[in-house]
Amino acid sequence: MMSTMQDVPLLVSRILRHGSTVHATATVTTWTGEAEPQRRTFAEIHTRAARLAHALRGLGVSEGDVTGTLMWNNAEHVEAYYAVPCMGAVLHTLNLRLPAEQLVWIINHAADRVIIVNGSLIPLLAPLLPQLTSVEHVVVSGPGDRAPLDGAKVQVHEYEELLAGQPDTYDWPELDERRAAALCYTSGTTGDPKGVVYSHRSIYLHSMQINMAQSMGLTHDDTTLVVVPQFHVNAWGFPHATFMTGVSMLMPDRFLQPGPLADMIERERPTHAAAVPTIWQGLLGELLARPRDVSSLTQVTIGGSACPKSLMEAYDRLGVRLYHAWGMTETSPLGTVARPPSGLGADEDLGYRLSQGRFPAGVEARLVGPGGDLLPWDGTSAGELEVRGPWIAGAYYGGADAEPLRPEDKFSADGWLKTGDVGVINPDGYLTLTDRAKDVIKSGGEWISSVELENALMGHPDVVEAAVVAVPDDRWGERPLATVVLKEGATADHTALREFLSEAGIAKWQLPERWAIVPAVPKTSVGKFDKKVIRRQYAEGQLDVTEL
Amino acid sequence: MMSTMQDVPLLVSRILRHGSTVHATATVTTWTGEAEPQRRTFAEIHTRAARLAHALRGLGVSEGDVTGTLMWNNAEHVEAYYAVPCMGAVLHTLNLRLPAEQLVWIINHAADRVIIVNGSLIPLLAPLLPQLTSVEHVVVSGPGDRAPLDGAKVQVHEYEELLAGQPDTYDWPELDERRAAALCYTSGTTGDPKGVVYSHRSIYLHSMQINMAQSMGLTHDDTTLVVVPQFHVNAWGFPHATFMTGVSMLMPDRFLQPGPLADMIERERPTHAAAVPTIWQGLLGELLARPRDVSSLTQVTIGGSACPKSLMEAYDRLGVRLYHAWGMTETSPLGTVARPPSGLGADEDLGYRLSQGRFPAGVEARLVGPGGDLLPWDGTSAGELEVRGPWIAGAYYGGADAEPLRPEDKFSADGWLKTGDVGVINPDGYLTLTDRAKDVIKSGGEWISSVELENALMGHPDVVEAAVVAVPDDRWGERPLATVVLKEGATADHTALREFLSEAGIAKWQLPERWAIVPAVPKTSVGKFDKKVIRRQYAEGQLDVTEL
Repeated sequence: MMSTMQDVPLLVSRILRHGSTVHATATVTTWTGEAEPQRRTFAEIHTRAARLAHALRGLGVSEGDVTGTLMWNNAEHVEAYYAVPCMGAVLHTLNLRLPAEQLVWIINHAADRVIIVNGSLIPLLAPLLPQLTSVEHVVVSGPGDRAPLDGAKVQVHEYEELLAGQPDTYDWPELDERRAAALCYTSGTTGDPKGVVYSHRSIYLHSMQINMAQSMGLTHDDTTLVVVPQFHVNAWGFPHATFMTGVSMLMPDRFLQPGPLADMIERERPTHAAAVPTIWQGLLGELLARPRDVSSLTQVTIGGSACPKSLMEAYDRLGVRLYHAWGMTETSPLGTVARPPSGLGADEDLGYRLSQGRFPAGVEARLVGPGGDLLPWDGTSAGELEVRGPWIAGAYYGGADAEPLRPEDKFSADGWLKTGDVGVINPDGYLTLTDRAKDVIKSGGEWISSVELENALMGHPDVVEAAVVAVPDDRWGERPLATVVLKEGATADHTALREFLSEAGIAKWQLPERWAIVPAVPKTSVGKFDKKVIRRQYAEGQLDVTEL
Repeated sequence: MMSTMQDVPLLVSRILRHGSTVHATATVTTWTGEAEPQRRTFAEIHTRAARLAHALRGLGVSEGDVTGTLMWNNAEHVEAYYAVPCMGAVLHTLNLRLPAEQLVWIINHAADRVIIVNGSLIPLLAPLLPQLTSVEHVVVSGPGDRAPLDGAKVQVHEYEELLAGQPDTYDWPELDERRAAALCYTSGTTGDPKGVVYSHRSIYLHSMQINMAQSMGLTHDDTTLVVVPQFHVNAWGFPHATFMTGVSMLMPDRFLQPGPLADMIERERPTHAAAVPTIWQGLLGELLARPRDVSSLTQVTIGGSACPKSLMEAYDRLGVRLYHAWGMTETSPLGTVARPPSGLGADEDLGYRLSQGRFPAGVEARLVGPGGDLLPWDGTSAGELEVRGPWIAGAYYGGADAEPLRPEDKFSADGWLKTGDVGVINPDGYLTLTDRAKDVIKSGGEWISSVELENALMGHPDVVEAAVVAVPDDRWGERPLATVVLKEGATADHTALREFLSEAGIAKWQLPERWAIVPAVPKTSVGKFDKKVIRRQYAEGQLDVTEL
């Protein structure tokens, strides 16, 4: 028996139509650094998105063609978010923090035909143009010197001029909901960047999940400050989710420094905000130095990397509740949200909020152990997290005329995404991530958490820093090597540290035998432990290793 | 470009799997009338649903076969809600309030092979059995005399005996999400009942919408008292929506009287409840007569028919906030929810809550005027509401081997559902329904609202009741006839009443010319004005009509 339901595709244009009619007066406010921010209603965004779509069509953009954006978070970027997918083309958000050579690679791989760029980012784009193989048009929006584009071999247009005189409506096509809507490349540390192609369907479903009370739970009473960049996994889905429920958006444009962020919160009174820990850390310093009224913020979504406990506590003292969320480019990104059950004591509540969170209905999860076996959700069995669902990637973009890529280390044989994250799941479905899969030590068919050992070691009063890596072992396959930076004048030695770990509750078989006292732990450009370097130093005999 | 997202179908089994793992300890509590209610966890419901599916398979139920339920709201009914669709069969919920001949017609039309019946409802089912053409098995659950089934030509089974010894898990098939999951017939007042076939996809999407903060916004902190029957449009979607977010359910079984409902609220402390106005009216009387602690109820969903203002105000005084929702069997049912914007004064807030509500993202709406023209959302242009969306019916079930039915008065040429409701939409997307389309007066290409005239007339101190119907008119097509019941000793006459309407703001061209003072307005069995009778009385010259 087939159903008698209407067969209505889940399209981005449906989100736009809904937002611009039922929530016509909700607004996108863009910070300008001037006395007045720029304000546009959702109805105006729809009108301008229609004009932009006509303009892009005029530049030769057809269904399936890729339009790139090199833009801050602002109303014009939201317009592109709707115009491009709704007309059947593909929006490619470009990460302006990427090295130039990666940007070039990505733009050429995606075959962007048009790039919309903010005037302030022309200095970033202009030097790349000679190496771009597919770009025919550059459309410039907002303030910034146009001069660096002079003489470029592409056609250069002004955004507002292109839109002027275009029709106010566009007959958005009824597309297959599985068609590509947006494209975002992961900035992996190894190999070429990998493109994730979101569909209309995945964006629609992800937006619904964002709005579920169990997730971010936004309503028409909310205004959200979208600090997370629109080039960072679709700004975690907020530009789409907001149009589903009439949530007004406050966009910081290029004013991402703590001072302006504090100013815009005080002035525009958002009820919600979304950003990575670094932003919240910077804002905290600003608020402590020059207090502002941030009482409008009832909840905040924090993600991108783990939120330090001290940061969450500091905001609790300011009356702002941070909610942890976990996700990846490959998960659209919503993977988990750490909303604790109500009625807990303060400590337990904080514990839940510091976990990665609970899986929403659309994300099916499993933990896979070192031997490929499925592990129970008992809060102690650690395995690699694999996920499945309608907004989870099952492949990477292979490029025009190429098959999608399904590397074995990223996708299981039955199509689940291997997240590369290792952790435990509690019986109540809360996830706690402890390690990256590449950082765990595979010892005799069991996993040893390097992060757990590091945290324990750093609890020793003599230890400044500790990094634990896997090194080859004839008997066990891999064993942990502990590299430790001691305080000046410290007296602890390997034996004492090992004893300390044992007393801290580390199982005997997990205790490192190999120890190296080092002057400093090598770090990556963003300040993380560079374990590749440590492993190489060990392999090349550059470390002074004691074996107990 | 095709997306690289996983192609994961939206299936009821995904909802079940999620609820029974991430929210394994959420509960379905069924009132028993005994000292202790029956409690089952979501994990137990899944286990028992798996056993039920094996049992049904053993009875010969295959994919696409229809299993009927004639049951109250209870854990076993929830088990059937999951077992039947998840195994690929179709759940047909039978309305136990229907006349026997309609039940027979419906069961035969849907070709139910199995009926699961509560023991207490055997007296309803047993007499029908000889007329049922497709039913082979009756499965009895819960207390009640089995004797009336003795000698029936069907096989009779005990629910618990069938489940005993079955495997605890079932390998739920990966179905096409557009496949039929559930079937519900509308109890129309004219013609044969019409079957609406919900798909896995429609149920999944509808459940997500229910959980959006803008709609009911339930979370794992909630317990919902599901008074609306499971045979009434899937209990408005709650048995599915709750498994998506770990909302515990409180099920009243057959204890729907005000006393037990008040008792279960006080004892089990649900945070949410869903029921029709009649239930809330009855409960109000009970609470005023014998107060109970209902402070746990933070919000209540009221629908099925319009909520009287006085009822909403009475519950406001009890600290319980009623939220209006509008829908139909054909809309799954969520069509609108009346959640006002925050920050309004009490009167304005109440005004919003008494409207039918705002359209959610999944429901596209348009107002169609008398001439087929689309009307603006200006709060004054009244038209018939048409809706479109992934959980809206586009046809009715035609029966086995028959094409779906698309009657012209129910579906537009372009596939929208004609709701048969007439109203206005405000610029902010809130719907106010004023009339049934069949009750509006089509006068010279414009519509006159009979309800508006009736409400205005009933504001006159001399008027007890007033019913306005359309009668044929040579010049205008139709014109209003006002039938009025006056108080004893009242002095108002037709002229005075017409003048009163004019002063109340009714436009001149809408004022009735035809008046009849009557001793009583004819009523239907459920107490509504029976306008068919009035029109017939007029046509047959039985009314004493004055024409002004």
